[in-house]
Amino acid sequence: MKPSFSLRLKVFNLNCCFDLALLQEVWSEQDFQYLRQKLSLTYPDAHYFRSGLIGSGLCVFSRHPIQEIIQHVYTLNGYPYMICHGDWFCGKAVGLLVLHLNGLVLNVYVTHLHAEYSRQKDIYLAHRVTQAWELAQFIQHTSKNADVVLLCGDLNMHPKDLGCCLLKEWTGLRDAYAETQDFKGSEDGCTMVPSNCYVSQQDLGPFPLGIRIDYVLYKAVAGFYIYCKTLKTTTGCDPHNGTPLSDHEALMATLYVKHSPPQEDPSPAHGPSERSALISVLKEAWTELGLGVAQARWWAAFAGYVTVWGLFLLVLLCVLAVGEGAREVAILLWTPSVGLVLGAGAVCIFHRQEARGLCRAQAELQHVLRREKKTQDLGSEPHLAPS
Amino acid sequence: MKPSFSLRLKVFNLNCCFDLALLQEVWSEQDFQYLRQKLSLTYPDAHYFRSGLIGSGLCVFSRHPIQEIIQHVYTLNGYPYMICHGDWFCGKAVGLLVLHLNGLVLNVYVTHLHAEYSRQKDIYLAHRVTQAWELAQFIQHTSKNADVVLLCGDLNMHPKDLGCCLLKEWTGLRDAYAETQDFKGSEDGCTMVPSNCYVSQQDLGPFPLGIRIDYVLYKAVAGFYIYCKTLKTTTGCDPHNGTPLSDHEALMATLYVKHSPPQEDPSPAHGPSERSALISVLKEAWTELGLGVAQARWWAAFAGYVTVWGLFLLVLLCVLAVGEGAREVAILLWTPSVGLVLGAGAVCIFHRQEARGLCRAQAELQHVLRREKKTQDLGSEPHLAPS
Repeated sequence: MKPSFSLRLKVFNLNCCFDLALLQEVWSEQDFQYLRQKLSLTYPDAHYFRSGLIGSGLCVFSRHPIQEIIQHVYTLNGYPYMICHGDWFCGKAVGLLVLHLNGLVLNVYVTHLHAEYSRQKDIYLAHRVTQAWELAQFIQHTSKNADVVLLCGDLNMHPKDLGCCLLKEWTGLRDAYAETQDFKGSEDGCTMVPSNCYVSQQDLGPFPLGIRIDYVLYKAVAGFYIYCKTLKTTTGCDPHNGTPLSDHEALMATLYVKHSPPQEDPSPAHGPSERSALISVLKEAWTELGLGVAQARWWAAFAGYVTVWGLFLLVLLCVLAVGEGAREVAILLWTPSVGLVLGAGAVCIFHRQEARGLCRAQAELQHVLRREKKTQDLGSEPHLAPS
Repeated sequence: MKPSFSLRLKVFNLNCCFDLALLQEVWSEQDFQYLRQKLSLTYPDAHYFRSGLIGSGLCVFSRHPIQEIIQHVYTLNGYPYMICHGDWFCGKAVGLLVLHLNGLVLNVYVTHLHAEYSRQKDIYLAHRVTQAWELAQFIQHTSKNADVVLLCGDLNMHPKDLGCCLLKEWTGLRDAYAETQDFKGSEDGCTMVPSNCYVSQQDLGPFPLGIRIDYVLYKAVAGFYIYCKTLKTTTGCDPHNGTPLSDHEALMATLYVKHSPPQEDPSPAHGPSERSALISVLKEAWTELGLGVAQARWWAAFAGYVTVWGLFLLVLLCVLAVGEGAREVAILLWTPSVGLVLGAGAVCIFHRQEARGLCRAQAELQHVLRREKKTQDLGSEPHLAPS
């Protein structure tokens, strides 16, 4: 690598002068193949992340050769019986591409988390926090020899939401919108705006001016420095034909990566204040997942009782069908009762699995919390050098 | 780290003088908690990997503090309707522990892959090969700053099986049994032996003398050297009470890690012959998964047709029930027909998801194949230095 290393990286658009285009909600593989063909001259490398029943919807187009590809499908992603929401069928995931640019190892992550359908009564909160934790863990464990880490995607979380804080505190990723020198686009960087004709007032809920739920996040290891020179969003409609590209505004970032002398390293190791913020957010996430576990267990128990009562009902219907008095009623109720037993049984199994998934994330959080607290306690000992 | 670095690591037993005990098929979390309590003095750190409906069955006990924990649940793991085999319900996974031993970073992986119920007609082959590939990918992407990598577990594959070769070729892991200086135990290192009273002749199939499907695999990065001083297996029964600990024989390895001067580095980068072996096994795996995709699509299509015919049958039954002639027959056939539609619909959805999972692994294999072939072609150019 040259000593005076400098790299400019343009990210996240379908405009052909960008290095990377990272898309979400491309549900049809045919659409991806069409785009791949159309863009093949400018973006020779591309990948579609297959997952679930419908697909993760994630794909990427790159001007630079993709060296390595891997993906992780989130353990929890909503409920199969919430057909109107549909997230469960997508198999939401995080995809990783490793690029080598002038000797620099760049790990690019693209993801899409579970949607928030009601902010007041968000039944998917525990799932989204678990996804944010799995995303953070996946980034931490797969980026150990990366010089620069870039995460782009639709996180379906506001900037101060628990999952977003957990992700940023645990990975050290910084928000391009908060750090850019030059921002142009919709007010407050919102990516769901009322001027977009695909966005209804109901989608925005208590935020009629718009919400920011799509992100470009980045970090560099010691020895490198990354900053966002410009960040742009579209603003609700395409100037050419008046139709927006999507219901979300696109983000376009120009990032610069440079060598930084060790003394100017802008990302110091976890100091006492950072550690205390991390511990606080880990605790909050642990508590939130605990509520999720309790709810999952309640539903599993409820569905279990319904299954048992449904079995009793089936026995009763058999007895009635043998007798003469209520044979017709018994035969009519037979199919719905079998449906009740099977449906409730499936719901019971699903929520038991959900509880197990939440417990798993809780155990990982607990392990990290214990370790961080131990380091904090050691750090406060006067005879030890500050960590 | 001391310059004359040397580390002895004893792995894989419940005997208290070992550093790490890695267990599979501990299906009950209560059993794990019991073991954790009993072993807490000798093994202060322990972890149970929760997953699926029953659990992954994986747990680990460590004499050294576990620094980091993460797990990956395999995308494909058998069929939910194969209740007698049950693998689907376990949510089989790979667990990773990161340990720091005298400054050395040790990544320990523990796993359990899908069982092979019939070697002649192995309907799970494509799933097991996909699991082996996901395992290899997970190891490659999460061990980038590890000095030593250790993989232990029940791979349910013979040493020369496709999945086993794929795993070893892609990760560079070496087999303790093939390399140890001192082996004691069952013949040919078998871990399922006929002298074990829990093993039936049917389990061994065409290998009446035993099979080797449990492994200790390892590698070290340049600068370190790892070797297996002793490897032992139990031999079918406990000398104290005559009852084996499990239906598989336990493996006990004593591994040594030492600094190696660069010129003595025993694990050179991929040369032309290693690359050619890798390409060959990648191709074979790609072909095998292609057969799996075709089969999954056939089942999805078949179940789809059955669903459509079932719907026709329901309409016909409605018509018959309205008339007088065959009302009783129509009412009797109603419940089985609804069951047929729902069951066939679920099977169709499941196999579509299976095909997508296999395609995903195929796409990753294809990407690696393309890159490796490119490097091979470049390497054969006379004006280039050998890679």
